Amino acid sequence: DTIPSDINIPDNYVAHTLSTTKPLPPITWNNWWKELNYISTTILTVTPAIAIYGLFTTKLHWQTALFSVFWYFVTALGITAGYHRLWAHRAYNASPALEYALAAAGAGAAQGSIRWWSRGHRAHHRYTDTDLDPYNAHKGLLWSHIGWMLVKPRRKPGVADVSDLSRNKVVMWQHKWYLYLFIIMAFLVPSVVPGLGWGDYRGGFFYAGAMRLTFVHHSTFCVNSLAHYLGATPFDDKHTPRDHFFTALVTVGEGYHNFHHQFPMDYRNAIKWYQYDPTKWFITVCYFFGLASHLKAFPEGEIKKGQLTMELKKLERKSQSVVWPKSSNDLPVITWESFQEQSLTRPLILISGFIHDVSSFLDEHPGGRHLLAKMIGKDASTAFFGGVYDHSNAAHNLLAMMRVGVLQHGLELESERAIPPSQRLQIVRAV
Amino acid sequence: DTIPSDINIPDNYVAHTLSTTKPLPPITWNNWWKELNYISTTILTVTPAIAIYGLFTTKLHWQTALFSVFWYFVTALGITAGYHRLWAHRAYNASPALEYALAAAGAGAAQGSIRWWSRGHRAHHRYTDTDLDPYNAHKGLLWSHIGWMLVKPRRKPGVADVSDLSRNKVVMWQHKWYLYLFIIMAFLVPSVVPGLGWGDYRGGFFYAGAMRLTFVHHSTFCVNSLAHYLGATPFDDKHTPRDHFFTALVTVGEGYHNFHHQFPMDYRNAIKWYQYDPTKWFITVCYFFGLASHLKAFPEGEIKKGQLTMELKKLERKSQSVVWPKSSNDLPVITWESFQEQSLTRPLILISGFIHDVSSFLDEHPGGRHLLAKMIGKDASTAFFGGVYDHSNAAHNLLAMMRVGVLQHGLELESERAIPPSQRLQIVRAV
Ligand code: HEM
Ligand code: HEM
Ligand SMILES: [Fe+2]
Ligand SMILES: [Fe+2]
Ligand SMILES: [Fe+2]
Ligand SMILES: [Fe+2]
Repeated sequence: DTIPSDINIPDNYVAHTLSTTKPLPPITWNNWWKELNYISTTILTVTPAIAIYGLFTTKLHWQTALFSVFWYFVTALGITAGYHRLWAHRAYNASPALEYALAAAGAGAAQGSIRWWSRGHRAHHRYTDTDLDPYNAHKGLLWSHIGWMLVKPRRKPGVADVSDLSRNKVVMWQHKWYLYLFIIMAFLVPSVVPGLGWGDYRGGFFYAGAMRLTFVHHSTFCVNSLAHYLGATPFDDKHTPRDHFFTALVTVGEGYHNFHHQFPMDYRNAIKWYQYDPTKWFITVCYFFGLASHLKAFPEGEIKKGQLTMELKKLERKSQSVVWPKSSNDLPVITWESFQEQSLTRPLILISGFIHDVSSFLDEHPGGRHLLAKMIGKDASTAFFGGVYDHSNAAHNLLAMMRVGVLQHGLELESERAIPPSQRLQIVRAV
Repeated sequence: DTIPSDINIPDNYVAHTLSTTKPLPPITWNNWWKELNYISTTILTVTPAIAIYGLFTTKLHWQTALFSVFWYFVTALGITAGYHRLWAHRAYNASPALEYALAAAGAGAAQGSIRWWSRGHRAHHRYTDTDLDPYNAHKGLLWSHIGWMLVKPRRKPGVADVSDLSRNKVVMWQHKWYLYLFIIMAFLVPSVVPGLGWGDYRGGFFYAGAMRLTFVHHSTFCVNSLAHYLGATPFDDKHTPRDHFFTALVTVGEGYHNFHHQFPMDYRNAIKWYQYDPTKWFITVCYFFGLASHLKAFPEGEIKKGQLTMELKKLERKSQSVVWPKSSNDLPVITWESFQEQSLTRPLILISGFIHDVSSFLDEHPGGRHLLAKMIGKDASTAFFGGVYDHSNAAHNLLAMMRVGVLQHGLELESERAIPPSQRLQIVRAV
């Protein structure tokens, strides 16, 4: 257990595994009852049933309501700050006190032991969106939210090493005593605190226990469903993970999931300090109290590179959606004599070596028809570029759309003025 | 008057005028009283003085308050939809009824006749940010807001043609009767309507007359001051005009001024229908009632080009702020033998032809130290690119930063994998 499970992994592991191992048959109306995972199905149906029964039979005291919210955050942080960022991703180091606290709190969220959870989660990151990912988002929202737990896994999740966790004292302690810790943290404490505090054992059990647990469950599940479905991809769009404030809100900060899949060992999910990520705030506070150290943050420049790539992609698409002027290579070369001659029959104007047909624009010219008209058959470069009026970049861009030819020997190739402002910076593809 | 004033303008007009005509001496503490423009100074100080006197001596009836706001919008639209967009910029055509209404309403804003106003405004657009611009923003907020009207112009504004307006019946009618129209619309109507309506002549005079006029004045002035000072430059940053919602709010929609200076003959100042621009909404409503026609809108593709250029500029700056990997030209070529030999003393890994030194990363590797360690002195391309784990784009970018050499004959130049994702799209300069 303490030797990395992937130490001898072959170089073609993924392709080889996918092609040589067969998945179980797909779930259908005929076989689902045979394929159920009875333990998790029971937990995930009985808990909300208890909560609903409680809702209709038990008065909610305000103290119990407040305590339920508090206990929701305690146990959810056990998962987000503990299971997820500390153990699955090693995003920081925690002092023993904090480790024990997180391990206990996480047990109250009833999502299995740290080791089991991290095993699956690391496979999720290693094989995102493939069949080796236990909660493959390509199989639909229902599957990634809860379906994958209700039935037997269709495939063994891909190999993921958790030998570092097998060597961790706190993780193994929690693994060993998991059942007791679960009962204590999920139901005993939330019943006893309101009971001793303000005599509300029953409300504590139903609201801070069952109801709170139902919310924590679906909060975590949303990280696998909603966070792979809703929102933007500011860092990379290779895979399904997405950033959305709403997801962050319902998952105690795990909703900036596009960032997280790019930079999984960063202790933050949202980089800006003010973006909603209570888990990051909690870790920062622990750091100030000396309970956490070695907070890992991906280098800022590398994070910027991801954003840059995505923004460039967007701009490339935008630039492909507009019509660009003809380049000098695609235009006929016209002699001065021919330019003069043609100007007698249509309104041609020479500007920085290009010959433009302004027929459609004569009456539209904001500077008036007369200023264009008197330049027909002439070089209007000086007038256009500030002699008479320093035209806007937009006017220069528009001008280029009226190109019909290049004056022989006339192109000011060396000059900025031969290139419309919208074409001075261009996006090129390296491959 | 009906022949364009700039019909014989020379090609070097701007430079020539600036170098051959002398401005009046600058305003100082010693000469300002000699340089005052007494008429406009009187109007711009007496009006607010009357308003303040009224404020302290006159009860405000709610009907008068409502009517004042209404009259504010009527007279302000006379300026924005009439003076500015219709006459100064010819952004649409108006039916005679609408023209007369706008000419009358605009007179109630006490900003001079349409012809005088458009003359100055066209010079402002033609010579933006130069000394030929009557309200040159480079001379400071106070100057462009109000200073330019309080003293004699330091220079004759640059030539701007208004012969089209001299040919316009409504414009000339307003010019002729301006004084009467001003008195009627600025003070008479706003006194009489509340007077006959609910017996509040006095309140009408002070609130709907003087107070409202003060607000309309400074609202228009903000277009010359605030709109050249506050906000973003999404379309072009060659000159001072800027876009800001706040400016739009206080100027009945003229606050998207960066757009406006790029596309002055567009009937909109804000392109999105929902962006705050009541003047655009007003024109649209007139269009639906057949009162306005030929609404000019700059082609969408050309508008996009402006945005694209500005966004590319920003990204170029961003890309210059990060450290990029060394290119193969800047790296030593290393033979296979030398690679093997050097790998004995430091952790070198070969991936797609580049040799990387992973010393600083061994213990940071999220996939664990062991997976890197076993690849030292080997080609890890297959494993890195999905054989074992399909690394994120971020990981590939980071990898490139560890380059220390190129394997002799080994560079997969033709392959995408030799180029980190952040360098596949690049911004290049055409000049
Ligand atoms: C085909 C060539 C031309 C095109 C496409 C063009 C386009 C434009 C455009 C789009 C504007 C609006 C303001 C701006 O965007 O900057 C404008 C304004 C103007 N143009 Fe041109 N122009 C051309 C040629 C000329 C020439 C040759 C002259 C002078 C001899 C001239 C004089 C002016 C003036 C004075 C204005 C300012 C109008 C005002 O703001 O009142 N234009 N032009
Ligand atoms: C110097 C070369 C390498 C660099 C810079 C590197 C970088 C990274 C980074 C940044 C991650 C985090 C996840 C991500 O961004 O995708 C990662 C994860 C991983 N790497 Fe590497 N890696 C390197 C070489 C390798 C090699 C050669 C292997 C396999 C033989 C490997 C296997 C893994 C695995 C399995 C993970 C997933 C860990 C998890 O999510 O639990 N890496 N690597
Ligand atoms: Fe995920
Ligand atoms: Fe994760
Ligand atoms: Fe302006
Ligand atoms: Fe304007």
